[in-house]
Amino acid sequence: MILSALLTSVGINVALCLVFFVSYSILRNRPSNAELYLPRLVANGKLEEEDEVGRGGLLSCFRWVKRAWQPTEDELLSISGLDAVVFMRIFIFGLRVFRFAVIVGIFILLPFNYMGNQLNIDFTDLPNKSLETFSISNVDDGSNRLWIHFSAIYIFTAVVCYLLYYEYDYIASKRIAYFYSSKPRPSQFTILVRSIPASPDRSFSESVETFFSEYYPSTYLSHAVVRRTNKLKGLINDADKAYKKLVHLKSKKDSEQSSKRTCFMGLFRKKVDLLDHYEKKLEDIEGNEVPAAFVSFKTRLSAAVAAHLQQGVKPTKWLTEQAPDPQDVYWPFFSASFVKIWICNIAVIFACISITILFLVPVLLVQGLTHLDQLEILLPFLTGVLKVKIISQVITGYLPSLILDSFLSLVPPVMIVLSSIQGYIALSQIEKSACIKVLWFTIWNIFFANVLSGTALYRFDVLFEPKRIPELLAVAVPAQASFFIAYVVTSGWTKTFSSELFRLKRLIWRHFKGNLCCKYDHETKVPSNPYHSEIPRILFFSLLGITYFFLAPLILPFLLIYYCFGYIIYRNQLLNVYEPKFETGGKFWPVVHDATIFSLILMHIIAVGIFGLKKVPLASSLTVPLPIITLIFNSYCRRRFLPSFKGYPAECLINKDRVDISDPVISSFYRKLESAYKDPSMKPVRYSEAGESSSNSSSSTSPLLRGADNY
Amino acid sequence: MILSALLTSVGINVALCLVFFVSYSILRNRPSNAELYLPRLVANGKLEEEDEVGRGGLLSCFRWVKRAWQPTEDELLSISGLDAVVFMRIFIFGLRVFRFAVIVGIFILLPFNYMGNQLNIDFTDLPNKSLETFSISNVDDGSNRLWIHFSAIYIFTAVVCYLLYYEYDYIASKRIAYFYSSKPRPSQFTILVRSIPASPDRSFSESVETFFSEYYPSTYLSHAVVRRTNKLKGLINDADKAYKKLVHLKSKKDSEQSSKRTCFMGLFRKKVDLLDHYEKKLEDIEGNEVPAAFVSFKTRLSAAVAAHLQQGVKPTKWLTEQAPDPQDVYWPFFSASFVKIWICNIAVIFACISITILFLVPVLLVQGLTHLDQLEILLPFLTGVLKVKIISQVITGYLPSLILDSFLSLVPPVMIVLSSIQGYIALSQIEKSACIKVLWFTIWNIFFANVLSGTALYRFDVLFEPKRIPELLAVAVPAQASFFIAYVVTSGWTKTFSSELFRLKRLIWRHFKGNLCCKYDHETKVPSNPYHSEIPRILFFSLLGITYFFLAPLILPFLLIYYCFGYIIYRNQLLNVYEPKFETGGKFWPVVHDATIFSLILMHIIAVGIFGLKKVPLASSLTVPLPIITLIFNSYCRRRFLPSFKGYPAECLINKDRVDISDPVISSFYRKLESAYKDPSMKPVRYSEAGESSSNSSSSTSPLLRGADNY
Repeated sequence: MILSALLTSVGINVALCLVFFVSYSILRNRPSNAELYLPRLVANGKLEEEDEVGRGGLLSCFRWVKRAWQPTEDELLSISGLDAVVFMRIFIFGLRVFRFAVIVGIFILLPFNYMGNQLNIDFTDLPNKSLETFSISNVDDGSNRLWIHFSAIYIFTAVVCYLLYYEYDYIASKRIAYFYSSKPRPSQFTILVRSIPASPDRSFSESVETFFSEYYPSTYLSHAVVRRTNKLKGLINDADKAYKKLVHLKSKKDSEQSSKRTCFMGLFRKKVDLLDHYEKKLEDIEGNEVPAAFVSFKTRLSAAVAAHLQQGVKPTKWLTEQAPDPQDVYWPFFSASFVKIWICNIAVIFACISITILFLVPVLLVQGLTHLDQLEILLPFLTGVLKVKIISQVITGYLPSLILDSFLSLVPPVMIVLSSIQGYIALSQIEKSACIKVLWFTIWNIFFANVLSGTALYRFDVLFEPKRIPELLAVAVPAQASFFIAYVVTSGWTKTFSSELFRLKRLIWRHFKGNLCCKYDHETKVPSNPYHSEIPRILFFSLLGITYFFLAPLILPFLLIYYCFGYIIYRNQLLNVYEPKFETGGKFWPVVHDATIFSLILMHIIAVGIFGLKKVPLASSLTVPLPIITLIFNSYCRRRFLPSFKGYPAECLINKDRVDISDPVISSFYRKLESAYKDPSMKPVRYSEAGESSSNSSSSTSPLLRGADNY
Repeated sequence: MILSALLTSVGINVALCLVFFVSYSILRNRPSNAELYLPRLVANGKLEEEDEVGRGGLLSCFRWVKRAWQPTEDELLSISGLDAVVFMRIFIFGLRVFRFAVIVGIFILLPFNYMGNQLNIDFTDLPNKSLETFSISNVDDGSNRLWIHFSAIYIFTAVVCYLLYYEYDYIASKRIAYFYSSKPRPSQFTILVRSIPASPDRSFSESVETFFSEYYPSTYLSHAVVRRTNKLKGLINDADKAYKKLVHLKSKKDSEQSSKRTCFMGLFRKKVDLLDHYEKKLEDIEGNEVPAAFVSFKTRLSAAVAAHLQQGVKPTKWLTEQAPDPQDVYWPFFSASFVKIWICNIAVIFACISITILFLVPVLLVQGLTHLDQLEILLPFLTGVLKVKIISQVITGYLPSLILDSFLSLVPPVMIVLSSIQGYIALSQIEKSACIKVLWFTIWNIFFANVLSGTALYRFDVLFEPKRIPELLAVAVPAQASFFIAYVVTSGWTKTFSSELFRLKRLIWRHFKGNLCCKYDHETKVPSNPYHSEIPRILFFSLLGITYFFLAPLILPFLLIYYCFGYIIYRNQLLNVYEPKFETGGKFWPVVHDATIFSLILMHIIAVGIFGLKKVPLASSLTVPLPIITLIFNSYCRRRFLPSFKGYPAECLINKDRVDISDPVISSFYRKLESAYKDPSMKPVRYSEAGESSSNSSSSTSPLLRGADNY
């Protein structure tokens, strides 16, 4: 790609971003759009105070930027929870990393790259200059200038590692502080027990009661056995229908009783049978227990002890883990058996692998577009069209990342489905697992598949020759620099503005629905932040920045701008749009840390290859210790910080328990705790007393359902 | 190697074994040899009852075989503990596996191999027939007979996996039963706390006291801070010398006081300074605490809770783990700091790698001997000697494994040293870690280095091309079959008889010492079973058997005989010679399990390569799922059984604690517990009250040392 094509792409995207930005600023303050752009404030009834400020001159339209900027981290914490703060820390971390990277990359590395003569390009025509002039490819082979790149890699790695350590430490301490300041939450006092051993003479509920009141006599509080609710839900639907039918039948029967009594006997008996059938089925539900239960204790320590120690003699029975909060529980697929979960896990691994392989199809399609020469050979009739400069520039600069992005947007929902059948019990766990899946999928299918398919003649078999990987990456990765710069601008800038800030799809859908169906859904639905799709996207940009830092520093300013935009936009969304669905206490940070370490090591491997190719074998050899040092640093961080993200230390649990004993609220909390973990489909009313909002419980209240809550 | 060379080797070794067997049977019952062959009975004073039976006719000499055979597993358990039982289960497992393997290998696979024509060897001269005639190499390429091998691999894997599951289950249940039947042991009630945070205004001892009496007020019993005893030991030696010097000086001073008073003033002042110096140093010991302590609780559950839960807010402070038994504690190198242990671990990894590389030298030497043709080229003057048939047969059949074995015997002590600097606190942990190190070292340096260096032209770089590994192994492994058969006979049979049963080295050493130095060490030293060198040896033979099962079934009968011998001999040694030094409760079994799984997968990889080479690509492809299924089986076993080997379940701990409460002995046990974890070098008397034998506490009782026990 030449410089002018890049500028075209940047120009288009800057224009688009401006349009979205201005439109948002104007549309935002219209009351009719409040449900779209400020759903959180609408739902919490805080719209008025916000609105009064909003109504003013044209300039005041843009005041939202200031208002998104203003709140301190503590205010954000109290409004949106620790997960939101951790999410914003990704941007702060990215800004710090790329601020340093831009200074080194643009002011030191870029001039040296530009001064090289390796590519033999004349200096006259700047707009038609290939972007490769600015990359390491242009530095002369064997030049001593490569030692500047070498030093930059070492210094950059040190800076990133320092920042990683600082952030991990900061978030770990935030996590403890958040725990100390939190009110008693059901999840802190409750564990989930799975694989309760079946006993012929008593139910699971009795087994749990006996076991825990025997072994935790002083702190055991209550339990709630999980029931197979997918069957129950089906049954409720059937029963509703049957109820209506029966009412209809009864009235019919009464009217027809005199006339065709004997004749309709057969049909009538059938209906009575149906009634019996449903009544029997409903009675069966009590026997339809799953060998899993939520067990609540009087203290946090007991719950932690029960969750950490192996309970039964058989390690596959009485499996315990800390329970999620009631609104975080994922009820639909409650796979309780150890073997079943284990088999599902293996199946999901295979499913992920096959999706990854299938996804190569759109990737190869996109690569065809960036390599127009190949496309012209394949489809010769296009040659005329592709000769037109602007079309060719749009096709190489804009279309590929758009196609890739559309296909990529299908991946997060698929990964959520896969994660949910892995037997996680919490929505937060499912989202975290999906987040990791999407991340690796993105890295593999966007980074590696693009890089390898584009230049290395589809040589995926290189995976079986580890020794050649650095060399191959060193050839392939710099060649894709221009594609990824375009990707940052398209997918990073414009997508953040259009889909995140402007919520384009939802706006269109809303107008479409409003005009056609003529009915508004008056209940405002407050969305939650889709961490599983957002975090991988942000991390992928940081991977691009870290790997291209010394290869093609031209990408860095674009990334820095992306992180600036992102910081403001996501802050605005967290304050006004997204309502937290769960609270993991910052458990997403280790994912960010690991991804950054991976990016660093990828950069080192490419550096080893590049220095080899550039005929500075000494620099190549001297880079080899760097990934090893980075891995050692990572193993230290894992030991130093990761345990803090798995649970809470005994010290904190005991201190917090002691504070609670003197709190008069605790006895009423215990009462609420006993009924906190009931399947929402079993409850006629929403769980809302404990100060928790449950947005995902469907409150269908059939007469039969009310009865189901009584036993 | 040809058949007659193998027979020569077998002949020599059978003769040697017979000699050792008969000599042992005769020498054993001589009272003068009791300390060598029955040290355990001597130490426990049980020699007499044994001896009376022993004295009889010549036949009764061999009665020890029956007596080693007779005791049931429960008797062995009560005599030698669970570790000994688990050790014997390795033999039982090996016998079961190879009983099946011999039936299939010798009666089904071997005839088919022999009937092949691939190697074009005429059928007339059996003694000069190459051993390869009996291996899979002789089966015709593309022959349908290879499907018999294919089926045998599947069936054999299924049988081994079934036996693995059965053994794991059996030992896990034994472990729980052993826990229930055990008396209260200090290790069950105690944890080790490391990385106690330093505080300027209080000592580590006060910190521990404050922390645990605050957070475990009802169950905290006592603690013992660890002191840096290597300094103390040096100091004791110095002080002993200084004491003697001072006594000498004082008497000297008294006598010389009148004559040279002023003249010796300078020297005298120096001696007084020395006295002050040592007194000051001894006082400093109290300040010389290590930030580690043994903390004892009143219940097993509390100890387990404190060991499993993260205690402090910082995950690198207040590190807790279950303490070993007092006699199992490894005092000399008490590295307490988290960072230090972590750095030592990394250093040990590098040390292991360099030892492994250095060890290639003797391996290559040995390979030179098995490939005499290469040796003749290198050292032409040997050609004449090597032409003599018997010499050539001895050199190819006996010498290589002897050399290899001598070098290999140096490895276990080295690995013990490496493991001990890794910061393990228990001798049992050090031995287990060394066991794993020796095992992988053996597999790599005996199996892979031999296989790869012998035939594949020293192609170690194949490690970087994983795709070619099966093919390469398929070429190299069958070629080494004759070497490994000789190795089983030499190192397996003869070494077990000579060094294990006959204790040849010790016998020679004893006579040498007895004749030359004219003084007997009258204190009988009871050795302990060196698990770290024995288990890897036994497992290596099982690896050979499993990998060569379908390649060269001729190895199998030799292995079966080895396991039969081993079963009797080790039982005899466990009953009469070895005293258990510690009790891990069967924690060595997971090592056996993992090694067997590794052997199976190695066999599968070779099978994939062999079927490819033999031009049955379908069989090759159909073998690929087998290692995957085996790994899935292994992951199931890890989940199902491994947690049982890490700790004891809450159920057992609580039950056992309840039994203890009603036991009147418990209060006296608590009193003993308070002083159980004192460094033996700090104690003037041996720890022996709690029914534990401490064989490694050196009881040097200087007057200064007695004082050191008072604070």
